[in-house]
Amino acid sequence: MDLSKTALLIIDVQMAFVHRDDKNEPRSAPEAEENIARLLGIFRQGNLKIIHIHHHSRVAGSPFKAGLAGAAVQEFVTPAQGETVYIKHVNSGFIGTTLEADLREHEIEHLIMCGATANHCVETTTRMAGNLGFDTYFVSDGVWAYGAVGPDGKSHTADEVHSMTLSNMHAEFATVVTTQQILARMG
Amino acid sequence: MDLSKTALLIIDVQMAFVHRDDKNEPRSAPEAEENIARLLGIFRQGNLKIIHIHHHSRVAGSPFKAGLAGAAVQEFVTPAQGETVYIKHVNSGFIGTTLEADLREHEIEHLIMCGATANHCVETTTRMAGNLGFDTYFVSDGVWAYGAVGPDGKSHTADEVHSMTLSNMHAEFATVVTTQQILARMG
Repeated sequence: MDLSKTALLIIDVQMAFVHRDDKNEPRSAPEAEENIARLLGIFRQGNLKIIHIHHHSRVAGSPFKAGLAGAAVQEFVTPAQGETVYIKHVNSGFIGTTLEADLREHEIEHLIMCGATANHCVETTTRMAGNLGFDTYFVSDGVWAYGAVGPDGKSHTADEVHSMTLSNMHAEFATVVTTQQILARMG
Repeated sequence: MDLSKTALLIIDVQMAFVHRDDKNEPRSAPEAEENIARLLGIFRQGNLKIIHIHHHSRVAGSPFKAGLAGAAVQEFVTPAQGETVYIKHVNSGFIGTTLEADLREHEIEHLIMCGATANHCVETTTRMAGNLGFDTYFVSDGVWAYGAVGPDGKSHTADEVHSMTLSNMHAEFATVVTTQQILARMG
């Protein structure tokens, strides 16, 4: 992995997900924030490309609407000077933004995806990244998911949602890796 | 649902998936082809917009490579005169094709998604369709999935994969409906 052609994408690590935690809603990967912080620290040390993607919902009642407390970025991933920030309004970081064109302009080939939620915004952005031809890595312990009940009435635990996302991503859209594996590849 | 602004998208109903059936690999929704045939028949009767999306893989060893028997279209969904066909090379029908521009040019607002597989190509195309602003319907019994083992070693049955896709799609990217519900909405 040529680090000069690699970017870390931190997706939707915003306060609304902290609020959901405050309600004790079960989620997967409680270690995810710690791993994201480790990746961010290593990328900053190496002066590597860091991209922050933030969600501003246009859906009535969403805690992610711009200006609401839920849309604020979690403090530990506050963008620093020189880091790129994209505001998106849908799940995919590639839709309604200049992300793809900017990555190509900067000759970025490798993308490391982390953030929330595993199965919605990170997965959608990863599906598109892989399909657009980027060499994409999905950090299995740097994303998290919440449980859900589907339209067929079946309940899926947060861990089941998380595990299915890894299964759907791997070898089809991305290489699923742990934080430790990414750090090892970075040398 | 204004039928003049509605399109049926039939995704990747090609012979390679029949071959997998021949191996008796477990899959979900054995009734899917019958439902796709029903939808196709109704759309043809009504002279409504029908779009066929076919996958031609560029991956070495893929049975979906152009010219191979696996890439051939299943007979019951052979495109008829006047129906639109897109060839894609990745999961999403929107990437590397003019699908989005053509839908907008024809003022299509409502998309009905069916085909295979539920969790790969239909799901990826549906995620993008919803994010691009189309009013998208995911036909729960007009798609099918295969079982999988994820990179975490966990096995997921075909029915579990199918059910999780419905859960991920519903109310986030699309409205999940049965074939019967679509037919009822069409009046």
